[in-house]
This record gives sequence, structure tokens and C-alpha cells, in this order.
Amino acid sequence: MIAVHGMSSSGNCHKVRLLLEQLERPYRWIEVDSANGGTRTPAYLAKNPNGKVPMLEREDGQVLVESNAILYWLADGTPFLPQDPWQRAQALSWMCFEQYSHEPYVAVPRFICGWTPLDSPRRADLPRLRERGHAAFTVMERHLSAKPWFTGERYGIADIALFAYTGVAGDGGFDLAPYPALRAWLARVRATPGFAEMPAPAPGNLALLAASAAHPGSASQARGH
Amino acid sequence: MIAVHGMSSSGNCHKVRLLLEQLERPYRWIEVDSANGGTRTPAYLAKNPNGKVPMLEREDGQVLVESNAILYWLADGTPFLPQDPWQRAQALSWMCFEQYSHEPYVAVPRFICGWTPLDSPRRADLPRLRERGHAAFTVMERHLSAKPWFTGERYGIADIALFAYTGVAGDGGFDLAPYPALRAWLARVRATPGFAEMPAPAPGNLALLAASAAHPGSASQARGH
Repeated sequence: MIAVHGMSSSGNCHKVRLLLEQLERPYRWIEVDSANGGTRTPAYLAKNPNGKVPMLEREDGQVLVESNAILYWLADGTPFLPQDPWQRAQALSWMCFEQYSHEPYVAVPRFICGWTPLDSPRRADLPRLRERGHAAFTVMERHLSAKPWFTGERYGIADIALFAYTGVAGDGGFDLAPYPALRAWLARVRATPGFAEMPAPAPGNLALLAASAAHPGSASQARGH
Repeated sequence: MIAVHGMSSSGNCHKVRLLLEQLERPYRWIEVDSANGGTRTPAYLAKNPNGKVPMLEREDGQVLVESNAILYWLADGTPFLPQDPWQRAQALSWMCFEQYSHEPYVAVPRFICGWTPLDSPRRADLPRLRERGHAAFTVMERHLSAKPWFTGERYGIADIALFAYTGVAGDGGFDLAPYPALRAWLARVRATPGFAEMPAPAPGNLALLAASAAHPGSASQARGH
């Protein structure tokens, strides 16, 4: 059976769990606390020198890292990844967009709000990050105004990749009210067979998220761009 | 014939040119000055709402964006991308690594050094960016100490993706002396059939690169990490 090393409250890790659940493929989940050094131990770095989660491990010990590469490998040959080369490339294109133009500006604000102290100097980055997060949502909104999914003609791994952090964007102080097509897509994803919501963060992180939302310095940038 | 909209001195764009040259596939190159608003015109944004180069355009007008997705589409079915699913996923994994853990810390310092004024406040980011660039080189060095290429058993698109900005890392103030396996790999890439070096930046950008290298405030962080 394959094993997934991941942090349950990480969107990048949840991508893998969500696809495995929807594929109904058995797996073993190995929880790694990457926010507290779990990916920086010698044992972990021996398997993944880049020190990140998620990491897929086969029974023969071979590993595959990078969430979107894992999605690709798991989905190849299933309905979650088109066979047509052009549609497949378009799905990969959206997954590249997700890692370069979306995740650093949507996932990182969530991390800052829920996984750093309220007086962290990183909070000064939030307005700039959120501005670029809204730019990513605007690109997504435009696509979704014309097409229902990011993975060719149907739901698939590009949708899973983009859903992961868009679905919890509110944690990072984003208001998705200006994006009706995006919100409709989020609802369509949540209605797919076998959908699994990301597990809630630990109580301490939930408290930080709540405090961040109530803190004017970080929350005042949440709307518009 | 396919058309590539790109800026010649951009590594992300050069990836596509290099593969097309090595595939000996005909293409039309449409120069776009992305450093001066060329990707922000209404005509360009109508084709690529994310406003970035490169962009591949087919004769039927359909477009594909994101450099690594373009590489994937062009290489599929050629020796530049393995057929074996696991090796293919590993190549994609390195391409994800390139976009998330390498390009933002290797390409961006080069951009700051050669495409922003010498008194740009962005230059204050250089030490932090370079530290993470060196972390990426360390991960690459470790892989290359055991294996000759990033694309399975042979040279291919993951090598092209990682070569693009590693090959001009010096422009961003990086010294690659601590990475002998990396330097040997750069030489192997340059020796592949049909290899094409990235065109030199415009004279004004070359002058900025030279001035940046001579400027102690930005050059003093060039070594070690």
C-alpha cells in the first residue's frame, strides 16, 4: 500500500488525500508536523532533501514529492486526468498557475494568519500577498465564467489543486464575494462524489485564525484589491 | 506553424526555444517586451489573462501558457519526456520544484539585478532571495551527485526547465563554485545536440547587471549561505 507523509491541515497535502479518497484507493497517512520541524529531521531529509510535505512513498521505498506531481501520477489513466494531449497540457498549465501565481499568495496568507504569532513581522506582508491572491482569483473567475472546470471537460486534478487553498481562502483573510463563478465552482467541487473536506487545524491554530480575523491590522486588507 | 510569444532574455521563455531547437521543430517567435508592459496590453490579456510569457499559440488560435506545461506538451511522445509513468512523474516533480523552490529565488534576483534601477527598494530583498536560491542549488547538487539528469535516465524537459535560470545564475549574483556536480551538469546540458544559449539581454540590462555585480550592497551577498 502507498503511504502519504503529510500535514492534514496543509492544502498541498490535502490535495493528495482528496484524490485518493475520490479514487477509493487505499493508502496509509503518516502525519508530519511540518509547521514544527517535522520535515527537517535527518530521517525526513534523507527521503526528501527539499524538506517539504506531501511525500508519497511506495512499498519499495521509492518516493515522489511535489503535490501536483503526485496528483498527476495517481490520476494518470483515471477520469481525473484527460487522455487528450492538449487537454492534459491545459490541466498541467493550471497546476503550474496554482503553484506559481496562486499558492504563494493564497496559502501563505493563511499560514501567516494561523501559524505565526499575532506580532509576527511577516504580517506586514499580508496586504501585498492578498493583492496578488485577488489577482489569481480574478484569472480563475474569468475562466470559470466560460467553463465549468479547470481539467478539460470534467472535474479532475487541476480542480483539486486549485480547490485546496481556494476552499480555505477565508482563513487568510480573503472575501470571495466578488467572484460568483468561483464560488459556484467551489460548491460544484464540494458536491463531487467522495469529496472530503480538509481537516480543521489544531485548536491553537484555529485560535490564531480567529484572532487574525478580528485583528484590524491584518483583517482590514481582506476585501477588494 | 506554432508561434511562441516570448521575451528572448527570459529564462522561462528560453526553455521553450531551447526545446524547439533541439526538437528541430519549426516555430515563429513573437518578441514580447514583458519587462515593459508587453504582456499587459488588452490584446495580450485577451489571450492570456494571467499576463505572462511564454505563450504558445497554435494556428487555430488556441493558446497554452506556463512554460513547463508548454515543455510537457511539446515533448510528449519524444525522447525529451520518459514514457514510464513513474519516471514521467519524477520529471514533473522536478519541474514543480523549479517553479516553486528555484525560479522565485534564482530568476528573481537576476531580474532585480538587471531589470530594476540600482536604487530600487527591491534590492533589499536580494540577500533573503539568494539564501533560498542556494538552498535550491544544494538540493540539485545532492541529486546530481547520484544521477546525471533530472528527467529519468536521460536529458529532457526537467533538465531544460532547471537549466534555464541556473545557467545564468551569475547574473543574479550567485557563485556556483560550491556545487561541482551542478557545474558538471550545466556543461553536459550545453553539450547536448542542438543546444542554444539564451540570447544576451539588451545593452541597458547588461549594463545594470554589470553595475549590480560591482555594487557592494548587492554583490556582497553573492557567496555562500
